[in-house]
Amino acid sequence: MTLRVGVVGGGQLARMMIAPAVELGIELRVLAEQPGMAASLAATAVGDYRDAETVLAFARDVDVVTFDHEHVPQPVLHALEEAGVAVRPGADALRFAQDKLLMRARLEELGMPQPDWAAVADATELQDFLDAHGGRAVVKTPRGGYDGKGVRVVSAATEADDWFTVLAEDARGGALLVEELVEFTRELAQQVARRPSGDMRSYPVVETVQREGVCAEVIAPAPHAAERLADVARGIGEAIAEGLGVTGMLAVELFETSDERVLVNELAMRPHNSGHWSQDGAVTGQFEQHLRAVLDLPLGDTTPREAWSVMVNILGGPVAGGLSDRFAAAMAEHPAAKIHTYGKDPRPGRKVGHVTVAGDELDETAYEARAAAVHFDD
Amino acid sequence: MTLRVGVVGGGQLARMMIAPAVELGIELRVLAEQPGMAASLAATAVGDYRDAETVLAFARDVDVVTFDHEHVPQPVLHALEEAGVAVRPGADALRFAQDKLLMRARLEELGMPQPDWAAVADATELQDFLDAHGGRAVVKTPRGGYDGKGVRVVSAATEADDWFTVLAEDARGGALLVEELVEFTRELAQQVARRPSGDMRSYPVVETVQREGVCAEVIAPAPHAAERLADVARGIGEAIAEGLGVTGMLAVELFETSDERVLVNELAMRPHNSGHWSQDGAVTGQFEQHLRAVLDLPLGDTTPREAWSVMVNILGGPVAGGLSDRFAAAMAEHPAAKIHTYGKDPRPGRKVGHVTVAGDELDETAYEARAAAVHFDD
Repeated sequence: MTLRVGVVGGGQLARMMIAPAVELGIELRVLAEQPGMAASLAATAVGDYRDAETVLAFARDVDVVTFDHEHVPQPVLHALEEAGVAVRPGADALRFAQDKLLMRARLEELGMPQPDWAAVADATELQDFLDAHGGRAVVKTPRGGYDGKGVRVVSAATEADDWFTVLAEDARGGALLVEELVEFTRELAQQVARRPSGDMRSYPVVETVQREGVCAEVIAPAPHAAERLADVARGIGEAIAEGLGVTGMLAVELFETSDERVLVNELAMRPHNSGHWSQDGAVTGQFEQHLRAVLDLPLGDTTPREAWSVMVNILGGPVAGGLSDRFAAAMAEHPAAKIHTYGKDPRPGRKVGHVTVAGDELDETAYEARAAAVHFDD
Repeated sequence: MTLRVGVVGGGQLARMMIAPAVELGIELRVLAEQPGMAASLAATAVGDYRDAETVLAFARDVDVVTFDHEHVPQPVLHALEEAGVAVRPGADALRFAQDKLLMRARLEELGMPQPDWAAVADATELQDFLDAHGGRAVVKTPRGGYDGKGVRVVSAATEADDWFTVLAEDARGGALLVEELVEFTRELAQQVARRPSGDMRSYPVVETVQREGVCAEVIAPAPHAAERLADVARGIGEAIAEGLGVTGMLAVELFETSDERVLVNELAMRPHNSGHWSQDGAVTGQFEQHLRAVLDLPLGDTTPREAWSVMVNILGGPVAGGLSDRFAAAMAEHPAAKIHTYGKDPRPGRKVGHVTVAGDELDETAYEARAAAVHFDD
């Protein structure tokens, strides 16, 4: 019997599960939002993931349902679980990825290091927080944000008025999340795979470089990461995976501060941009690992294949022509670069591909990856 | 514009082009012999590759046509080329892979080292060759053989009577190929990728271990291969790729003799079992390289990622249940093993998957690969 994994969502994360699924011999079935998406090759259904009937019909005849994104509503997740479908990560874990206030509260219970935070229901409460934190803070909508969307640095409570208005109109009520503006020296990410049986495997902590709120580059492992830092990051990742009951891949985005603290910034319960390096740079890539984890198969070796891997995102892509028009020049100059494109039309700021180079020397490896990726700009 | 590669044939070689095609962002279209084949995920047509109209219709709207096997008849290849389709490798190159007598004659012209050979039209000519070569020789049908089929060691001319009878009935006439029985110490394979523009990249020469005429194991690079041997093998591979006008991947199977000669045994103008190690063990795997070569894109780096890679075929597979029933045990004990299965039903002797392990130490690497593959036996 061929194992069958159903993926809700047809974006590039679902697309990048295709290669390891085909290689292992797992049948991947994708519920795509619309035709022609990045994962369309594996799409067996097109439909609305917010509709329980659509998702239930899709989930028939698969061994497990997993996700390209975390936006499937709780009622749909519960309907799946009540119908006896294996949902990984499950509804109870996904709550914490879907609601940043729930996430902050749960991390506090788990004793995880994180920025000062509060739930603020109105401008007065936000102003109080600002006053107590030097007059500036980060305000986030608890739901629906990604890649810097739904995140705003404010220095006056009025700067979040529009969001408070939306909240007031939302029948569910609720609050905004406000967080201390952390003076970080750099951003890190820790990935952990966890099986339903509880087994976990962690990847080395990586450094992520963001530009305009979007991941631009990842260096694996994080340079100058002392053993203590790597241990602390891994400990945080594993405690969160276990404490939140995550199954599949978990990514924990972290701030490293000048006083050597590590604070949890964001979570993602799925393969994550910070782990794309592992496709080419680790014995087991994150997409294969996610499939193994959600199928409750033993996890693969996460050891890096080379001393350094550098992943550079292709953001936007060429203004004229397609990405493949740039293959010839990029490949001619960078024969060791691993080029990935997602079958998406170029658009300013959009993640349309990435390039990974692995090597012995960080400087050279990073140069090669950046220089290869530049071929796909404008 | 997305690049489109059409592959004639839906077997595991076409299947293993899917992963690099999806990652690079190339559209792969497969003409499968029947539904449900190994490469069915990418199948856009099902039909008979011996029918020119079927293949011409399939070839419409692709940038290049390439192959899962070498059995497409010359008239079909010519029809494609006359219709202006880019066919890689082309009809003129494929002749030499389709007819072993043509291949031997051409290699002789090129001055390539090979076993003594002759075209024998009847038992008398075969007996003459036997008498001149110690009474034993290898007889081959020039066309249609693979994995040991169409190959027979004989010590009396009468042992080929059935094949002579078939030849006599074949309107094309023709002869059998008879070759000296080479006293080889081991078998090697040299892979070369060649672009239409002429650029080539070679992989390191590997050692192949055959059991009952079928490739069982590959060690990359070939152990104890002195630089001279590696240079000779690469020289032979590149001379053949150029001399025969091959585009895409070429595999040259070689005998190494006790007196340190290297003789050409067989050719394959496509990705080849001897190169499966490169998927996990080289910077650029042979399936990505084949796609790049047939699209006339610059070729990728062929450097091994680790000192050693060992690939072990899964032959036959479990007598009961499917291959995926064995994942749990194999993965639990061998977390660094890269497991590949082809979506084919187990059947004695059939190639249904392979396992590759890459590492620093040959003994340990080979042990891991063999021990992981054993989980998929009987």
